[in-house]
Amino acid sequence: MKTYSKALNWSNVTVAAHEVTYDPDASWVKFYLGINRYALYSREDPTILQLLKDLQSMTVVNAVVKPSGHHLKLALKMRNLAKVMYKPMRQQRDDETPEDVFYFVDFQRHNAEIASFHLDRILDFRRVPPVAGRQLNITGEVLHVTHNEDLRSVFFTSPANNTCFFAKCLYMCKTEYAVCGSPNHLEGSMSAYLPSLSMAPRVSIPNPWTRSYTFTGRQEWEDNPFYCDTVKQQPPYNSGNRLLNIIDMSIFDFLTGNMDRHHYEIFSNFGDEGFLLHLDNARGFGKHSHDEMSILAPLTQCCIIKRSTLLRLQLLAQSAFSLSDVMRESLQSDPLHPILTEPHISALDRRLHKVLSAVQQCVRRLGEDEVITNDFIKPTVNPTVTTEMELLR
Amino acid sequence: MKTYSKALNWSNVTVAAHEVTYDPDASWVKFYLGINRYALYSREDPTILQLLKDLQSMTVVNAVVKPSGHHLKLALKMRNLAKVMYKPMRQQRDDETPEDVFYFVDFQRHNAEIASFHLDRILDFRRVPPVAGRQLNITGEVLHVTHNEDLRSVFFTSPANNTCFFAKCLYMCKTEYAVCGSPNHLEGSMSAYLPSLSMAPRVSIPNPWTRSYTFTGRQEWEDNPFYCDTVKQQPPYNSGNRLLNIIDMSIFDFLTGNMDRHHYEIFSNFGDEGFLLHLDNARGFGKHSHDEMSILAPLTQCCIIKRSTLLRLQLLAQSAFSLSDVMRESLQSDPLHPILTEPHISALDRRLHKVLSAVQQCVRRLGEDEVITNDFIKPTVNPTVTTEMELLR
Repeated sequence: MKTYSKALNWSNVTVAAHEVTYDPDASWVKFYLGINRYALYSREDPTILQLLKDLQSMTVVNAVVKPSGHHLKLALKMRNLAKVMYKPMRQQRDDETPEDVFYFVDFQRHNAEIASFHLDRILDFRRVPPVAGRQLNITGEVLHVTHNEDLRSVFFTSPANNTCFFAKCLYMCKTEYAVCGSPNHLEGSMSAYLPSLSMAPRVSIPNPWTRSYTFTGRQEWEDNPFYCDTVKQQPPYNSGNRLLNIIDMSIFDFLTGNMDRHHYEIFSNFGDEGFLLHLDNARGFGKHSHDEMSILAPLTQCCIIKRSTLLRLQLLAQSAFSLSDVMRESLQSDPLHPILTEPHISALDRRLHKVLSAVQQCVRRLGEDEVITNDFIKPTVNPTVTTEMELLR
Repeated sequence: MKTYSKALNWSNVTVAAHEVTYDPDASWVKFYLGINRYALYSREDPTILQLLKDLQSMTVVNAVVKPSGHHLKLALKMRNLAKVMYKPMRQQRDDETPEDVFYFVDFQRHNAEIASFHLDRILDFRRVPPVAGRQLNITGEVLHVTHNEDLRSVFFTSPANNTCFFAKCLYMCKTEYAVCGSPNHLEGSMSAYLPSLSMAPRVSIPNPWTRSYTFTGRQEWEDNPFYCDTVKQQPPYNSGNRLLNIIDMSIFDFLTGNMDRHHYEIFSNFGDEGFLLHLDNARGFGKHSHDEMSILAPLTQCCIIKRSTLLRLQLLAQSAFSLSDVMRESLQSDPLHPILTEPHISALDRRLHKVLSAVQQCVRRLGEDEVITNDFIKPTVNPTVTTEMELLR
């Protein structure tokens, strides 16, 4: 039986009978070149709008099924050499995560990937690579164009005559994990890849507020209210931005309800002061009626927050400019809209107020000066320094 | 990591701190003693009613989680030494099998096990071991009484504070297959075990009309309308009851919609003339709106049927004595009633008429004498011969 390692190796895959063309002006190239030590893209970068459009239309030339737990993804290679991760729809917009399901076995949701990109952008973090929704014809646009034997072997026709695919697995094929088109079209999220690890190495670091990923185990932070004091003494959390970035991430995850943040990644080239990538957000937006306060533990235990983050949150808590309205409008630009049901969108306002209440409680206890922190590293406007801080140029 | 083989070995399990008592008058013992070469029990045997009652109340003294595909079962040992297979509820009564799901990855349904026992009895086959529904307290009635470390290690409390268990597996634990009580009670089917293989050996024989169990493969019977001619020439199908019994089974499976009959079992002691056991019926009753005609292939291709079976079917097709009414009434005796939704119950009448139409078409083509066959082996009323034909005495 073939092993994953072979199936996953891009270099083993021939891009047969397809002309691939490298265009230095392609939006994905510009996106790579625009990554800097402050964010994945700049606030008004027209490249991102173009990349979102391109994700919806680029021609696939190869595809590899990537299994991940009981999820299925397709790693797509495009004619213009862009790489894209496609996560197919696994559940309906109004399905809620069953109450007995642990966060680490929850479905991955394509619409959570899309919504998280929009939310991260609205929060002005810009740490999620661009994601757009797309109705992909998995037969015409994927299977028939790829000339890939490994791929053919995992495609099949369902009893209802729909085209489906599953992950080939080492031990036994879990065909109950198959996903099916209708009959060929299948909606999913298209996430732009980051530059390859050889071009832009990243490190993956355990989240100090990780969960136990067992049924019964508890982590120290769950029982020790002074846990942050320990974290604060350890590098890299004892200086610079890192702890504040962790708190940004916890606010982001609390708003989406994502409990599955065991690691985070940063670009090695930017050193300890680089921003935290907000990757893999597909387990957010599982339950609209529940606010998982434990996700906010980094904020409530450390009682610090970046001033810039707080200002943004306060702005989005105003009724004239509410987070739910901004999200609703932003998500309308996606071809698969509505991306989130109304209960999920309005939950954002409720959760935002809970974040602001948590900050207020800290301020009441410790005073504004202790809690609201100036960002340690300020963006510079000096163009020569900016260039130095970019990732690839 | 411990392997299944150890976990599944009853002899490794100590029935600690429990007085187990062997009662030769227990209903399960009488059931065993009543098994004869014609059926698992006789038509009016009061033992079966008592056994159904006992299945609902017997005290558990040990339990072993038995994984089977992505299903979970508990092999229970009772204080009176009865053995019972408990299949927990996995889907709601009104859930339908999704149209893209193949028969071999479909859920197993506890209510299908219960309903199939009743249907088999109504059809007068009596080839399904007794099954009753039961609300089991998986904490109080199972976990706390069993003193079994292997069992403890697969029990956990869900985020919603319900008690759950999962199957320990060789490679990785698929916790998404866990089942949960509410908070401790979980309904399921309780199937009486057959006598052990050492007491009453059975053989498992591939069904000549098996399916391919792959996405694309087809079996000869699916494309060759003369397939039965080949089967008829091969022992044990070239003489005696066997082919007629296969046709009985296909009618039974067609009525429940069970496509998952790859093998059948018979008791070795009764030789080639023994009846076919109708075991493992949990994949029936998946779709009420669809009648899978291919399940009837043995009947439509061989065009023979036992006279006794046909008479029974004709009786149950009369409006005054309709199969749906008899089933509805029979299922009401189960503590978990309603066992089937109305659409599933009324589908039985529709399917029964399709069986009778298929017989009619055969008669029209080949004449009654060719199609309607006297049972080759007649039950005898001579008591000495009867004794000889019983399984255990």
